[in-house]
Amino acid sequence: MEMITVQEAENILFSELRDFGTEEISYEQALGRVLAENLLADRDLPPFDRPTVDGIAIDYDAYHKGVHSFSIKATQAAGDSPNAITDQTDCIEIMTGAALDQSVNTVIRYEDLSIENGIASIQNIEVKKGQNIHLKGKDKKQGDLLVKANQLITPAIIGVAASIGKIKLSVKKVPRVIIISTGDEMVDPSTDPTPFQLRRSNGITIKAALTKFGIHAELLHLNDNYEIIRQELKHCLNDYDVLLMSGGVSMGKFDYVPKVLEELGVQKLFHKIKQRPGKPFWFGKSPEQKLIFAFPGNPVSVFMCLHRYFVPWLEQSLQTNPSPQYAMLNNDIQFPYSLQYFAQVKLRINETGQLTAESIDTNGSGDFSHLPETDAFMELPLEQEVFRKGEMYRVWKYNL
Amino acid sequence: MEMITVQEAENILFSELRDFGTEEISYEQALGRVLAENLLADRDLPPFDRPTVDGIAIDYDAYHKGVHSFSIKATQAAGDSPNAITDQTDCIEIMTGAALDQSVNTVIRYEDLSIENGIASIQNIEVKKGQNIHLKGKDKKQGDLLVKANQLITPAIIGVAASIGKIKLSVKKVPRVIIISTGDEMVDPSTDPTPFQLRRSNGITIKAALTKFGIHAELLHLNDNYEIIRQELKHCLNDYDVLLMSGGVSMGKFDYVPKVLEELGVQKLFHKIKQRPGKPFWFGKSPEQKLIFAFPGNPVSVFMCLHRYFVPWLEQSLQTNPSPQYAMLNNDIQFPYSLQYFAQVKLRINETGQLTAESIDTNGSGDFSHLPETDAFMELPLEQEVFRKGEMYRVWKYNL
Repeated sequence: MEMITVQEAENILFSELRDFGTEEISYEQALGRVLAENLLADRDLPPFDRPTVDGIAIDYDAYHKGVHSFSIKATQAAGDSPNAITDQTDCIEIMTGAALDQSVNTVIRYEDLSIENGIASIQNIEVKKGQNIHLKGKDKKQGDLLVKANQLITPAIIGVAASIGKIKLSVKKVPRVIIISTGDEMVDPSTDPTPFQLRRSNGITIKAALTKFGIHAELLHLNDNYEIIRQELKHCLNDYDVLLMSGGVSMGKFDYVPKVLEELGVQKLFHKIKQRPGKPFWFGKSPEQKLIFAFPGNPVSVFMCLHRYFVPWLEQSLQTNPSPQYAMLNNDIQFPYSLQYFAQVKLRINETGQLTAESIDTNGSGDFSHLPETDAFMELPLEQEVFRKGEMYRVWKYNL
Repeated sequence: MEMITVQEAENILFSELRDFGTEEISYEQALGRVLAENLLADRDLPPFDRPTVDGIAIDYDAYHKGVHSFSIKATQAAGDSPNAITDQTDCIEIMTGAALDQSVNTVIRYEDLSIENGIASIQNIEVKKGQNIHLKGKDKKQGDLLVKANQLITPAIIGVAASIGKIKLSVKKVPRVIIISTGDEMVDPSTDPTPFQLRRSNGITIKAALTKFGIHAELLHLNDNYEIIRQELKHCLNDYDVLLMSGGVSMGKFDYVPKVLEELGVQKLFHKIKQRPGKPFWFGKSPEQKLIFAFPGNPVSVFMCLHRYFVPWLEQSLQTNPSPQYAMLNNDIQFPYSLQYFAQVKLRINETGQLTAESIDTNGSGDFSHLPETDAFMELPLEQEVFRKGEMYRVWKYNL
């Protein structure tokens, strides 16, 4: 038994990053995917000098010379071709978002005008040259970077894509993932278990957690039959990039998974981490570089290993590199074992903007009843046994 | 012009909450929806006394009397019916998750045993009565509350639902929403605009932002034609619960929206809020209690009004009631207008768990180029003109 530390496990995982390539998809389908290209301005933003209010456009020079009433030469809506004036005592009645002609350079809003018989007169206000105009190219110049590659596509990014006519976006492909649960005692959630059986929940939980990354994983359940497990895993290693397994990796007589995987040529990269929950986590790669994350079967272990190992591996592989998150512990914790403890915590941001973490008492890794009411695992260092209120530790969020 | 404050606008909105009823859907489709029922334990959790390790199960009384080697009477996997011992010198070889018989009460893990010829001998360790057992009902009793109603359904909640066989979940129905953009100058993103046109982006941005609430909104664009707007809005008021509009609510000659809505019997509840961006926001209800959120047309105004008004209205209507979020301003801001200012900020949680907000300079509500790189609007009080680094204000997140 050569148990490794959490940090050593992470180092091994991060030495096995994968590039799944890119694909072009409709911008309407791109939410939550990782952008694989920079988005550039296709023209200046705004593309023309535009009024920011509704009113009239004039030549400031006339106002400066004392002209305060202007004859409305034309009315111009947004989208219309620009209307010019040739006489300085004329003006254009113009709407927000229209394109100003070069013959006008200052806009006065309706609120500061009286209009009668086609004559717009400026009320008692001070007019400044160039007022109420959003100048061409003020926000961005043609070719400027609008959105950097390697980030999750948000609603705002979809809006920018629409505005520059990028109706197809290049996004990172995600791995083909199959989620495999094991255990004779685990029955389908739609059936009634005998008193000694349980309903399966790990697979559907993982599947749900992966949807936000745009991964639509398949589900498979295998009973504890050596030959069937061998055959099915062989197919899975052929058809998928990543196998996420739960169960079958402990000391039990029917824990066939590591043996079958090694028989199929999968190289063990580690087995067992100095942590609670999730100690028996097994990780390996096939000759074809497929990766196998074989988590222990307990629901809390699965959930922790998914968020502490698979998700960071995925984010590193997709190059999104989110910042680490820290919170202030809001109560004392004692953990007198030489394992790195992942405590289930409720996160709160108080009125001073401080992120705090309140740990809850659980009954070990089989007790998943607190996962819905908590938000994150707090990673507590291996070297300590006592963790005090007010201390800062890293958190791995799952419900936010 | 009777402009109201942000708080007055919120009060009016919150007096128009709606209940859209509930529906039953598959637990596999329920992610992100709001749970409309409590989830209760269908039996004790765990449902039986179960070993937390692989090893042997004994009667502690025998160990106490000095017996340290036990004859393996049977091997019991998880899911099997429990095996009993009748002789205190016997044991059951047993796997994690199996159901313990009443005749055994203590479990010793493989790591602390040597097994030879069907005899398991305890190594030099201290055995405690009842060790390595997760007792029936320790986590929850049958009928106990596992998940409270009125919260967003997370992967963990889906896992709990699976474990209790709740393959159908009662969830809150969401409103039927249509998103209507207006403006002759706005063309489809797939087409090339003339120099004086722009591509539409507001509708698709709103639609993308609503997907996380399980709302699949329709999109409609209307040109500035009074009669067409009247006819189409009439249909929309009939077919949808909520109309989210952008554009057509300012002072412009072609801003028909408020007039058409009032002609269709829609009661104006407010028009214009003392805020930047988003001042001309118009809100009303039809005789059939349908709600119309008519936002100004600028992309930043739309985005702000969506997250500051529509989303909180939706969350209140669905009763999820999330906590307000505050952040510490990380730079000084001056805003010398008597409007409530919503600053675009980048949020960061530093290593002390402090949420900070860095504002960025923008060129007004037509400049949407910074939305992808920022995370929230920070709401700065109407009464002040100067906001200092280190002060706390409320934030409305959009990209996290």
